[in-house]
Amino acid sequence: MSLFEKHRAIIERAVQANRERVFFAQYPENPKAYAEDANAAGLLKFQNSMNTDFSELEQAQPLRFEGEEVSPYLQTGLGIRYPVFADKIVVERAKTAFQSWRKVSVAERAGILTESLERMKERFFEIAYATMHTTGQSFMMSFQASGPHAADRALEAIAMGYEELSRFPAETQWVKPMGKFDLTLKKSWRPVPKGVSLVIGCSTFPTWNTVPGMYASLITGNPVIVKPHPKAVLPIAIVVAELQKVLIENGLDPNTCQLSVDTSKFPIAKEFVAHPDVKLIDYTGNSVFGNWLEAQSILGKEVFTEKAGVNSVIIDSCADLKAVADNLGFAVSLYSGQMCTAPQNFFIPEGGIETAEGHKSFDEVAAALAAAIEGIAGHPKMGPGVLAALQNDLTADRVKEVAKLDAKILVGSHAIVNEEFPETRTASPVLLQVDGSQEKLFEKELFGPIAIVIKTKNTADSIRLAKQLAQKHGAISCGAYSTSEVVMEQIADEMASVFVPVSFNLTGPIYLNQHAAFSDFHVTGGNPAGNASFTDPNYVNRRFVWVGQRYA
Amino acid sequence: MSLFEKHRAIIERAVQANRERVFFAQYPENPKAYAEDANAAGLLKFQNSMNTDFSELEQAQPLRFEGEEVSPYLQTGLGIRYPVFADKIVVERAKTAFQSWRKVSVAERAGILTESLERMKERFFEIAYATMHTTGQSFMMSFQASGPHAADRALEAIAMGYEELSRFPAETQWVKPMGKFDLTLKKSWRPVPKGVSLVIGCSTFPTWNTVPGMYASLITGNPVIVKPHPKAVLPIAIVVAELQKVLIENGLDPNTCQLSVDTSKFPIAKEFVAHPDVKLIDYTGNSVFGNWLEAQSILGKEVFTEKAGVNSVIIDSCADLKAVADNLGFAVSLYSGQMCTAPQNFFIPEGGIETAEGHKSFDEVAAALAAAIEGIAGHPKMGPGVLAALQNDLTADRVKEVAKLDAKILVGSHAIVNEEFPETRTASPVLLQVDGSQEKLFEKELFGPIAIVIKTKNTADSIRLAKQLAQKHGAISCGAYSTSEVVMEQIADEMASVFVPVSFNLTGPIYLNQHAAFSDFHVTGGNPAGNASFTDPNYVNRRFVWVGQRYA
Repeated sequence: MSLFEKHRAIIERAVQANRERVFFAQYPENPKAYAEDANAAGLLKFQNSMNTDFSELEQAQPLRFEGEEVSPYLQTGLGIRYPVFADKIVVERAKTAFQSWRKVSVAERAGILTESLERMKERFFEIAYATMHTTGQSFMMSFQASGPHAADRALEAIAMGYEELSRFPAETQWVKPMGKFDLTLKKSWRPVPKGVSLVIGCSTFPTWNTVPGMYASLITGNPVIVKPHPKAVLPIAIVVAELQKVLIENGLDPNTCQLSVDTSKFPIAKEFVAHPDVKLIDYTGNSVFGNWLEAQSILGKEVFTEKAGVNSVIIDSCADLKAVADNLGFAVSLYSGQMCTAPQNFFIPEGGIETAEGHKSFDEVAAALAAAIEGIAGHPKMGPGVLAALQNDLTADRVKEVAKLDAKILVGSHAIVNEEFPETRTASPVLLQVDGSQEKLFEKELFGPIAIVIKTKNTADSIRLAKQLAQKHGAISCGAYSTSEVVMEQIADEMASVFVPVSFNLTGPIYLNQHAAFSDFHVTGGNPAGNASFTDPNYVNRRFVWVGQRYA
Repeated sequence: MSLFEKHRAIIERAVQANRERVFFAQYPENPKAYAEDANAAGLLKFQNSMNTDFSELEQAQPLRFEGEEVSPYLQTGLGIRYPVFADKIVVERAKTAFQSWRKVSVAERAGILTESLERMKERFFEIAYATMHTTGQSFMMSFQASGPHAADRALEAIAMGYEELSRFPAETQWVKPMGKFDLTLKKSWRPVPKGVSLVIGCSTFPTWNTVPGMYASLITGNPVIVKPHPKAVLPIAIVVAELQKVLIENGLDPNTCQLSVDTSKFPIAKEFVAHPDVKLIDYTGNSVFGNWLEAQSILGKEVFTEKAGVNSVIIDSCADLKAVADNLGFAVSLYSGQMCTAPQNFFIPEGGIETAEGHKSFDEVAAALAAAIEGIAGHPKMGPGVLAALQNDLTADRVKEVAKLDAKILVGSHAIVNEEFPETRTASPVLLQVDGSQEKLFEKELFGPIAIVIKTKNTADSIRLAKQLAQKHGAISCGAYSTSEVVMEQIADEMASVFVPVSFNLTGPIYLNQHAAFSDFHVTGGNPAGNASFTDPNYVNRRFVWVGQRYA
């Protein structure tokens, strides 16, 4: 049985879910849904991988081994070294692998790629610990985001690719009536892959942000070079290794998907980008490098970016202010604001808001938010788990720098005691208060646990500011609270016009930071926060070209 | 009844044909399929429009009237002047119209746009004469290309847009099981148009090359500014005027689609391109300006181009050499090589080719092609109709310059006597012969009636050269003749790898120059001949962004 036949049911359900955009998760997000001993076994495997050379890749003759990952929980190096290759060799190997991979049928590619996700699933716990000790995420987020959620995002890319690549007939008889006779041609159409694909990972979501581009390029027939962030390699190294094993088992070239690790001192991304045979580039990271990458499109590169954005919350009115504040406090605190979807700017009218419990002044709304943030950070059990760790010192420094800003500090930052890992790099969220006129202070992304309450003239002013920021600096998410259908539609329409998705009136255990595979288009691709979206049709269609043949 | 309901059957059949890629033509290409008096009435209307100001546009307060069209048949000015507007005013009006157009449902947009094609149909003959006397095409090509074929291309864009904009549900209930309870969100998705669209026309196919971008932008909710070539305005002016009438009848802003005419002396395209609110740009024309436009993508513009290409024919072997030569001779001669799909380079092995009638030497193959070309040009009845007229003097000059090249002249150029229009600007096709090593001579597009026979080492060498040219300089079409399935697949595969469609073994009345709506993707978008394709999914999907909303 081919791998396509083996996984046909999964692929078809994924295609269906992708069309319907209803809830669908191939991989359960609850760790308890997996084997009882899987957690302990995964932890042990992770521990055993520390201070060793990563030897699972099927890539021959490395130049040397290098590694520089540091656990944000232990604040010591993991001691794992990865094989390093010359960039030219990596591209040459990709080009060789391209010649066989492009000829594998779309269905078989889908089968092989889905099989690799099934293998990845066997290592979700190990990937979770690897993620935790590179990104600083909590165990639970590490498990969910880097394991099942990432695998679902990868499956979504497979499904979208499978659908798009199959949408036109492979061949047909074209019969044109000419009156006295018919003209007949056999016509065929091939989806032709564009070429070598480079996927550049980030330090905070090493699999979740990497696998969509990786699997989208692979399903469309392109060979992939994964260039992880040098501080967050292990999670994606495991994924690539598992895929390479499946490729070999199926008689294919493991270099169809290669890992190419670099170091902070000698970054390699620009060499790959400059290579004429590299045609596709996926990137998650800062806007400066992302903008440079986008400009490479004039050299014929197809570039897919997720960069920085400034996410807003517009508070117009609500039923239960405490429920709103609790939800938003959690959204700010989760992984210490190191999600690209975390809210930063909270726009509140100076005249306050209406609630089911009566009018609440601006100060009361701000105080509710402050209390929610302090409540999480100050909670000895909840705090460490929700806030987790800061991935790097730059984020910690940014929190300290906030004191210098011309803003009222509603909530100051302090360290969080993590009993399990006393060395954890932490900083509880700060909450600042500024006026709507102080745009310079809040117009840029302040990545990390930094939130700002902004006093606006009224909701129209809040919308104007949120829209303007999204247009100029990008936005990936937006929260809004209103009891008025008219205001809600106004916010949805205005924010959609700058290509920002809005989540309305979220309370309880669902947060605007969370974007689900098969349902939420993550990053719309329409504003400066990024030019691509997980996973809209463009995300796969830009990776190949339809070419027709006609036969008399 | 809404216009969508009125045209529902047409739209649904077009969507279906677009999926199946079988033969489909909503608008018959045979002039006899139309009313008996339509031709005479169209001619009269065209004649009456000469030496007048074009007053059909529903665009208020022109600055002045200008026009510079010259008939290639009469070599006198048409004397038609068009309203001229300040570019900033045109963009402002587009932005105003955008606010209402974007809120019209996709179905209603499809209905309105299809209605405009039905109105255009009523003016096919008038458009044909307008095309003839601006482009120099024959009456038959003018009728077919600017009338029914263009309308079918427009309908194809409507169909692809309708399908893509409807592919995700407008809203759904998203229910995530959480074990003890379910999380429920209402989710909705909107296809949000990108903004003002500029469509820049060319002088040779003023409607066929303009309506795809125009209708693709309109169906996706964007307002359009059509900037025609100043030498070929009337055909598309009629189309825009008809659409504006339909918009007004339906209570919509006629500025949803504006015509903005400029002059050779004061071109306006760059002003539009530089305008920050112009987000989409469609262009057909020379590569220098096309490449500059593509570079504007770094300013956040979505650019769709069709530029120059060098089209090859690979002759490996065939059944009937005369039938092949006749077909290719016609392809070279049709509209004097002024089609972007016309073949230029004919690669023939130095050792000759095998045919059903035995071996034919290189010289015999070249001679057969020469005879076919001479046969058409020298035929007093067929010649003038097939060759038609040269659109401009630059093309005529280019033909003269050919004598200076280091190439053997197999067929020289001469004037063609057109009895109906003695002043017609003509030049019969030249056929040159060069060696495969003289790449500098044949690597660039020599637009017009110039064909080159190239002596190669063998078919592998022919393929190598054709592929290399396509990769470096672009190609829109490719012809190939072989009796070997293996060689055919090799050519299909190699040319597909540089994103060039191949037509195999065409003889009789079907030519590689012809690309049909609903079936042939015109320009693949994968090589330097252009970055877009009529009409693949990218052609519409790049014009809007999916934006989601979530409601608790």
